[in-house]
Amino acid sequence: MASSTTALVITIATIAAFHFSSPSHAADFCIADLKGAQGPAGYSCKNPANVTVHDFVFAGLGVAGNTSNTINAAVTPAFSTQFPGLNGLGLALARVDIAPGGVIPFHIHPAASEVFHVLQGKVISGLVDASNKVYLTTLKKGDIMVFPRGLLHFQVNSGKSTAIIIASFSGAEPGLQLIDYALFANELPSELLEKSTFLDHVQVKKLKGVFGGSG
Amino acid sequence: MASSTTALVITIATIAAFHFSSPSHAADFCIADLKGAQGPAGYSCKNPANVTVHDFVFAGLGVAGNTSNTINAAVTPAFSTQFPGLNGLGLALARVDIAPGGVIPFHIHPAASEVFHVLQGKVISGLVDASNKVYLTTLKKGDIMVFPRGLLHFQVNSGKSTAIIIASFSGAEPGLQLIDYALFANELPSELLEKSTFLDHVQVKKLKGVFGGSG
Amino acid sequence: MASSTTALVITIATIAAFHFSSPSHAADFCIADLKGAQGPAGYSCKNPANVTVHDFVFAGLGVAGNTSNTINAAVTPAFSTQFPGLNGLGLALARVDIAPGGVIPFHIHPAASEVFHVLQGKVISGLVDASNKVYLTTLKKGDIMVFPRGLLHFQVNSGKSTAIIIASFSGAEPGLQLIDYALFANELPSELLEKSTFLDHVQVKKLKGVFGGSG
Amino acid sequence: MASSTTALVITIATIAAFHFSSPSHAADFCIADLKGAQGPAGYSCKNPANVTVHDFVFAGLGVAGNTSNTINAAVTPAFSTQFPGLNGLGLALARVDIAPGGVIPFHIHPAASEVFHVLQGKVISGLVDASNKVYLTTLKKGDIMVFPRGLLHFQVNSGKSTAIIIASFSGAEPGLQLIDYALFANELPSELLEKSTFLDHVQVKKLKGVFGGSG
Amino acid sequence: MASSTTALVITIATIAAFHFSSPSHAADFCIADLKGAQGPAGYSCKNPANVTVHDFVFAGLGVAGNTSNTINAAVTPAFSTQFPGLNGLGLALARVDIAPGGVIPFHIHPAASEVFHVLQGKVISGLVDASNKVYLTTLKKGDIMVFPRGLLHFQVNSGKSTAIIIASFSGAEPGLQLIDYALFANELPSELLEKSTFLDHVQVKKLKGVFGGSG
Amino acid sequence: MASSTTALVITIATIAAFHFSSPSHAADFCIADLKGAQGPAGYSCKNPANVTVHDFVFAGLGVAGNTSNTINAAVTPAFSTQFPGLNGLGLALARVDIAPGGVIPFHIHPAASEVFHVLQGKVISGLVDASNKVYLTTLKKGDIMVFPRGLLHFQVNSGKSTAIIIASFSGAEPGLQLIDYALFANELPSELLEKSTFLDHVQVKKLKGVFGGSG
Repeated sequence: MASSTTALVITIATIAAFHFSSPSHAADFCIADLKGAQGPAGYSCKNPANVTVHDFVFAGLGVAGNTSNTINAAVTPAFSTQFPGLNGLGLALARVDIAPGGVIPFHIHPAASEVFHVLQGKVISGLVDASNKVYLTTLKKGDIMVFPRGLLHFQVNSGKSTAIIIASFSGAEPGLQLIDYALFANELPSELLEKSTFLDHVQVKKLKGVFGGSG
Repeated sequence: MASSTTALVITIATIAAFHFSSPSHAADFCIADLKGAQGPAGYSCKNPANVTVHDFVFAGLGVAGNTSNTINAAVTPAFSTQFPGLNGLGLALARVDIAPGGVIPFHIHPAASEVFHVLQGKVISGLVDASNKVYLTTLKKGDIMVFPRGLLHFQVNSGKSTAIIIASFSGAEPGLQLIDYALFANELPSELLEKSTFLDHVQVKKLKGVFGGSG
Repeated sequence: MASSTTALVITIATIAAFHFSSPSHAADFCIADLKGAQGPAGYSCKNPANVTVHDFVFAGLGVAGNTSNTINAAVTPAFSTQFPGLNGLGLALARVDIAPGGVIPFHIHPAASEVFHVLQGKVISGLVDASNKVYLTTLKKGDIMVFPRGLLHFQVNSGKSTAIIIASFSGAEPGLQLIDYALFANELPSELLEKSTFLDHVQVKKLKGVFGGSG
Repeated sequence: MASSTTALVITIATIAAFHFSSPSHAADFCIADLKGAQGPAGYSCKNPANVTVHDFVFAGLGVAGNTSNTINAAVTPAFSTQFPGLNGLGLALARVDIAPGGVIPFHIHPAASEVFHVLQGKVISGLVDASNKVYLTTLKKGDIMVFPRGLLHFQVNSGKSTAIIIASFSGAEPGLQLIDYALFANELPSELLEKSTFLDHVQVKKLKGVFGGSG
Repeated sequence: MASSTTALVITIATIAAFHFSSPSHAADFCIADLKGAQGPAGYSCKNPANVTVHDFVFAGLGVAGNTSNTINAAVTPAFSTQFPGLNGLGLALARVDIAPGGVIPFHIHPAASEVFHVLQGKVISGLVDASNKVYLTTLKKGDIMVFPRGLLHFQVNSGKSTAIIIASFSGAEPGLQLIDYALFANELPSELLEKSTFLDHVQVKKLKGVFGGSG
Repeated sequence: MASSTTALVITIATIAAFHFSSPSHAADFCIADLKGAQGPAGYSCKNPANVTVHDFVFAGLGVAGNTSNTINAAVTPAFSTQFPGLNGLGLALARVDIAPGGVIPFHIHPAASEVFHVLQGKVISGLVDASNKVYLTTLKKGDIMVFPRGLLHFQVNSGKSTAIIIASFSGAEPGLQLIDYALFANELPSELLEKSTFLDHVQVKKLKGVFGGSG
């Protein structure tokens, strides 16, 4: 093999010359340029020449969210807006902390399916499908549950300690619409809200007060 | 031109012989075989040899829905399950009739965006985005409004006559999840429902009674 | 429940603080910025901060098109270029008016499937698939017909009054290629046109004259 | 390195045991089972256990098509129906032979874009876009031309020898609709055809005769 | 409000009657029928009538994999084949255990991008893009790193304790091709292997022995 | 027919006025503006007003690549970066020249499936799937072989003359990762490389020297 080795060594320059030139990384990745234009497929790409390993790494999920609020829960997103390396790759994560007694109220993700993975604690988890059938279970450490895109679901901490969950999503910007906030945190006139939800006037006024809405 | 005509006439058989044989219509269409297997992309295809013009036509939207119910509204779907010709084509329709005082309560379509087109009447239409911002307007005959996939929206008839709407969807099976039914029409235990919605116990019990739920 | 109510009221600020911040609406929608760059997925997004309900509404389909032309028909599009709220959502509409004796000549939509919905009148509708099989029927008010993407179809008003149709498409920019215009409205040399269509020279010259072509 | 080598050798069985078991090749490929059900995404998959190298290879493009017909051209497809290994992979090929004086008349591919690559000969190639603008050029050996999905195009052999072309498509079943055949090879009634194309009665009758149509 | 309440209570049956009937869950989900046909989009759907909450839950990731092998690592997949609820949803997970000194050798996922999340331990993680640029970093607990689809990457445990990782993928069947196994675990003739990798004969024979290959 | 002809002639202006105005070609094509922003779906579009037939044509595949290098092979790409007309169309081509004794070493295409078409010569072609099964064959002129996206494959010229191949890809920027270059052409530290590939230190140093790497 020596002769071939020599041949190989001699032709280093030739080897180096032969390589498929790929100046554009459009096929590899498109790190989000958060200051650039957005389109339906995501953010514009950061200049590949300026991409470093730091564009592929995100540390935010290691920090516990602050659950000192009414719902005793916190969500820490790692979507493409927080983690530009995810742009266009069809994937996102989020950390969910639910303190004892806490809850992630009924919500949907408009743009992605979700897998909910319990790292610590015990969580009652519910999913309702479009035929109104409810799927209810208690998840423990190591369990995962899938919520198909666009369907209502919620979680309640049923244990004595904080539950920690990692949620994975099938899109870089899954979105999140919490029903309570969508209904009660804005200025949608109460009369319309009552008509469109069948909720009582007293209930609507109360929750508008709670969630910061008006009208 | 006579000579070329003659040449053409003589070679009828040859012309007939030359044609790109396309025994499979996988590229053209895939009329749903409602009895066959379903996959993530839709129904299996009906045998192309048995396809007739009737597979491409659907008459159901010409009939007014029965609005004699509590919400004074009716939805008549033309999804792939009702109209097999739509299978795999990324499109569906539905007719919506809302009688005076009627409403289509808050709902989402998990799998498609929607364009709502008022053919007759006047409708108050509301959309809430994932930042909880509400977009409210009154639509009259000829107006269309778009509801991006997975976001909450509702409509209320604000006129004195029945409103008739045609909804178009960007998927063959858009799905529909009405919040009232998803929350109150099943057996999800009241305690969990209260916790996951912040609704009062009295409200939950009442609406479970109204929408046929239990627990 | 009073204590919880009080607790809820007291913690309004906390509730307000807890909400998933979604500064980017990349998941929700991407209203077209008609002045910005276009990419294969559509237009760039308008700044979400400037989005109002008017971006989700379009009124143009309520106006009858002007059918005083040779084909006695008019098409009024509501594609993303006319209705920026559709950008990236996989959906578009158009209004079609066909006066008595009028026609929408053979055409295709390169980028979308279509559902053709007759609101008024009677229309002969024809579809030809890739095996050259023809599907022909007469549509009346309330009927819908689907034309799978990229296949030739046409409509003729077979009634005594103007036919009004709403067409829905499975893409925000479906495109439209009318065969007569594609063949006869440009400067493609007649000799080539005759060779590539088998049409007679006299026919080609005549229709080039009719449709504004040359060569 | 001897010790690590020994360690590696000793643990052959262990190495062999560790491997990610992938019994399902759903991720790798889905060779078409031509006898099985079809869905919108393609054919069902052949049992992976029965897949051999022959499923990945196709020899048909090496044979010249028979151009002894009226248009003096032949198309030899390698779509998923002919080459099952392409199923679901978004790619197909076809060989085109055009004898001197021959033509591939105006046609579209409903389901895919095409790249047309001249291997031998000289070809006049034309594309018409949806604004009716025509793009015309002469292609020689080695040239490629792209025809975006769903747009009308044609080719004419402008040389003295047979032109050989390989066409690549962005879908496993691109489809092919030749305008002449779509219009004149079926039983669409002449009156309707004249109305929907603006062609003269004489022309329609003549070409129906030529292309094997009736009515 | 009493009168409306009464009206609502009285009309329970009517309410129950009004609901959008969605017998088909094609839009909601398509739990894999592992015994049924597979297509390019995934498995056929299990009968929705037989779907229970257990179809949405998977417990396998809570169990540590057995790392007593040569690479001192284990991968426990939760792909659609293991977790049928994921079918068609564009998402999958896997648990990775790497003992001290262990490694996940260079590999790719043909069908999905990956986010690698360290739950415990310290891992050196490397990614190589298509321009051959290498991105290298050390990940600690809470860090996530993204590997765009189809690019080579590897991980090495650089700590003193077992590293536990959860990998999320942007497809239900991401696939996994470990380079060492792809090259050395089969019967590809050594001569060809040497030619196609530039590896020395001695190296090829040795690793074929290690990884269970022949030829 | 004379009267209708006259009527048609007279109304030329009217005909010309009636046509669907499509100022935007977003549906037709999006020729890459190589200087503009890139997004996950491709390049921004060139101004349609400036598009000519030259944007749809590419001549580079007619020129033999320079195979005077160590691997005795050359790849000439026609991806969207080289051929802007392909932008967003899901298709790309490349020419491959392999001199006698030459090889395209083991590689993958992260973003597309490939069809490999032998125009001249004889080529040994191998594909390895994710279960490590190898598919090996010899291809002759006219044969095509498909390599599903993301799987390892290689080719060796087994004939006495230069082999010429045209590769078609199911994406406009397929990417190319040659394993030898990915492993040995950068500065990945040898110790890590040995650990992540099980290659001997001597082998790693040698090939780093050959392929221009360091560390």
